[in-house]
Amino acid sequence: MKRRQFLSAATAGAAAAAATSVIAKPAIAQNAPTIKWRLSSAFQPSLDILWSASELFAKVVSDLTDGKFQIQTFPAGEIVGTAQALDAAINGTVEIIHTASYYYVGKDPTFSLFTAQPFGLNTRQLNAWILAGGGQELADNFFKKFGLVAFPGGNTGTQMGGWFRKEIKTVEDLKGLKMRIPGLGGEILSKLGVLPQQIPPADIYPSLERGTIDAVEFVGPYDDEKLGFVKVAPFYYYPGWWEGSAGLHFMINDKKFAELPKTYQDAVKAAAAVVNQDMIAKYDARNPGALRRLLGSGATLRAFSQEIMEASYKASQEVFAEISAKNEDFKKVIESTTAFRNEEYLWFQVAEYSYDNFMIRQRRTKSD
Amino acid sequence: MKRRQFLSAATAGAAAAAATSVIAKPAIAQNAPTIKWRLSSAFQPSLDILWSASELFAKVVSDLTDGKFQIQTFPAGEIVGTAQALDAAINGTVEIIHTASYYYVGKDPTFSLFTAQPFGLNTRQLNAWILAGGGQELADNFFKKFGLVAFPGGNTGTQMGGWFRKEIKTVEDLKGLKMRIPGLGGEILSKLGVLPQQIPPADIYPSLERGTIDAVEFVGPYDDEKLGFVKVAPFYYYPGWWEGSAGLHFMINDKKFAELPKTYQDAVKAAAAVVNQDMIAKYDARNPGALRRLLGSGATLRAFSQEIMEASYKASQEVFAEISAKNEDFKKVIESTTAFRNEEYLWFQVAEYSYDNFMIRQRRTKSD
Repeated sequence: MKRRQFLSAATAGAAAAAATSVIAKPAIAQNAPTIKWRLSSAFQPSLDILWSASELFAKVVSDLTDGKFQIQTFPAGEIVGTAQALDAAINGTVEIIHTASYYYVGKDPTFSLFTAQPFGLNTRQLNAWILAGGGQELADNFFKKFGLVAFPGGNTGTQMGGWFRKEIKTVEDLKGLKMRIPGLGGEILSKLGVLPQQIPPADIYPSLERGTIDAVEFVGPYDDEKLGFVKVAPFYYYPGWWEGSAGLHFMINDKKFAELPKTYQDAVKAAAAVVNQDMIAKYDARNPGALRRLLGSGATLRAFSQEIMEASYKASQEVFAEISAKNEDFKKVIESTTAFRNEEYLWFQVAEYSYDNFMIRQRRTKSD
Repeated sequence: MKRRQFLSAATAGAAAAAATSVIAKPAIAQNAPTIKWRLSSAFQPSLDILWSASELFAKVVSDLTDGKFQIQTFPAGEIVGTAQALDAAINGTVEIIHTASYYYVGKDPTFSLFTAQPFGLNTRQLNAWILAGGGQELADNFFKKFGLVAFPGGNTGTQMGGWFRKEIKTVEDLKGLKMRIPGLGGEILSKLGVLPQQIPPADIYPSLERGTIDAVEFVGPYDDEKLGFVKVAPFYYYPGWWEGSAGLHFMINDKKFAELPKTYQDAVKAAAAVVNQDMIAKYDARNPGALRRLLGSGATLRAFSQEIMEASYKASQEVFAEISAKNEDFKKVIESTTAFRNEEYLWFQVAEYSYDNFMIRQRRTKSD
């Protein structure tokens, strides 16, 4: 099957020039070239909300271009794995990927901040920072260094702290704990004695069952339910302070993006916006039912103690300072998100939080 | 100036037929007809976030259609006023309006629920209900009765409870209070002795200054600041429980929408999504600075007492029951939003709320 079909740079250039000069004239063929792209998702179809974001994106782009701009979607591993997806977009093996930028923290820790900063912005605040707080400009400047353009493409909301085989009440209880947790969250917890483990998703369950690891963090009720952790590690902690919000991105090879007619570029941006509002809506709609089912299956819900939260916060500040001392980009971005976050909570603690607080208390007074 | 130019129904029909049949063939002129619409906003340009939503919407539609679908935007009052906008869309005087559906509660109280239900869904929950909880289908069925299609077009977030000339500590303090508050919120508060007043925006300030009214609810810090209420009614209450979220809509004459080529219909939907994520981002980014300035100008921030909140909640249930007994549509929609809300807070109280709670407390421990 001929899966890939590039528009030559010359044709695309002519099309782009035509697109800007023919406004109000009848549409002509060059205006709407047939283009095919390949999109590699960082996710498997079994994680249906994450995976379907790519399908929705491709559908909207097709709808907006009268079917002329076709994006074929591939699950993680079919063309490249999640870890290799960034390089595949950089070198043009695929034109576009849908992924979490923090998977590429090994290339530069700054990548982590565009997905989630531990003790950082919540979901609405992250969108506000990107769209109206200077975040997109900082992202543009950073991703440009890698030959990429990136647009927000969904969010999971505040994640859970994960599944633990035993109760964790104090910082002392964290010492020596083998926990599957990647990225900055793992680096911060290692300061408190946790031994972060990197384990592929398929190996997590048997590792927990055998006791090779003691805990795992994943996403939230809807995704976690599918992996069955409740059976082998029933203590379900919250909140996942390392991901108060987790924003995904569509990342595109910038040369391929520049070759698109302006109208197709705008279709890509609009489709990303459609996905961005759709994904969090789906998580918010489906997490409650999954949480109910997990509680029915024996999950024991526990909040991290104030002692653990405060020690983690302190450790996060140390990690941020260490990385900032070595990495100018990281420093610049985290200074922006931190200042923005502090202002945001000034406002959120007033109307938003007090409203939610009343609604939660009101709900609890009723039988449920 | 020739401001309006309709595509004849016959031409549009042909274009739509062509649009569905030419996929993968070269674009032809009928594929991309030049169409001009007029959009009447319910807002004035001085309320820049609300007004600019229409401008952004028109820009995105133009961008996505290579400039061929042009939507000219008019502030409230230029073609029709806010109160007449719904009828203007219904009878086709304008093709599209950008407004809050609860302005039309006089026509049917069900309109109120698509903007804000007192003690209802917060902003993320409202989007989740519309996009992934059956809300759009209920909206489609309701708006169809009026010959309209409607898409979410922005949200203000939880609103403030408004500006009061005197402190309000108990339900007793509400008795005889003349408050500018429209819609369901006013109806509920009237059960507690408030005398709701309907006053056009331009007359609110002088009425407050003279003491003709005692209180006013408007939006939140960023919009409220412009109207200068702090000078004459400094007690600034929260939360605005009658608008835990306030969602706006683009409402379109359904015959005009059906006449559009499918690609243009999709452009309208995508542009609405762009606005829907952009507006709340702007409010979230700008409210904190406005709140700071208002506090610096003498605003005294006060939470409604638990007594007032609980009495208001109780009164809201009575009002909902009364309307539901007379109006099947209202009953159907509020049963859906209420059930959805109760499930949502089961989940939101866990990760989201506990995360925000920690971040707010952490922020308060620092000097500010």
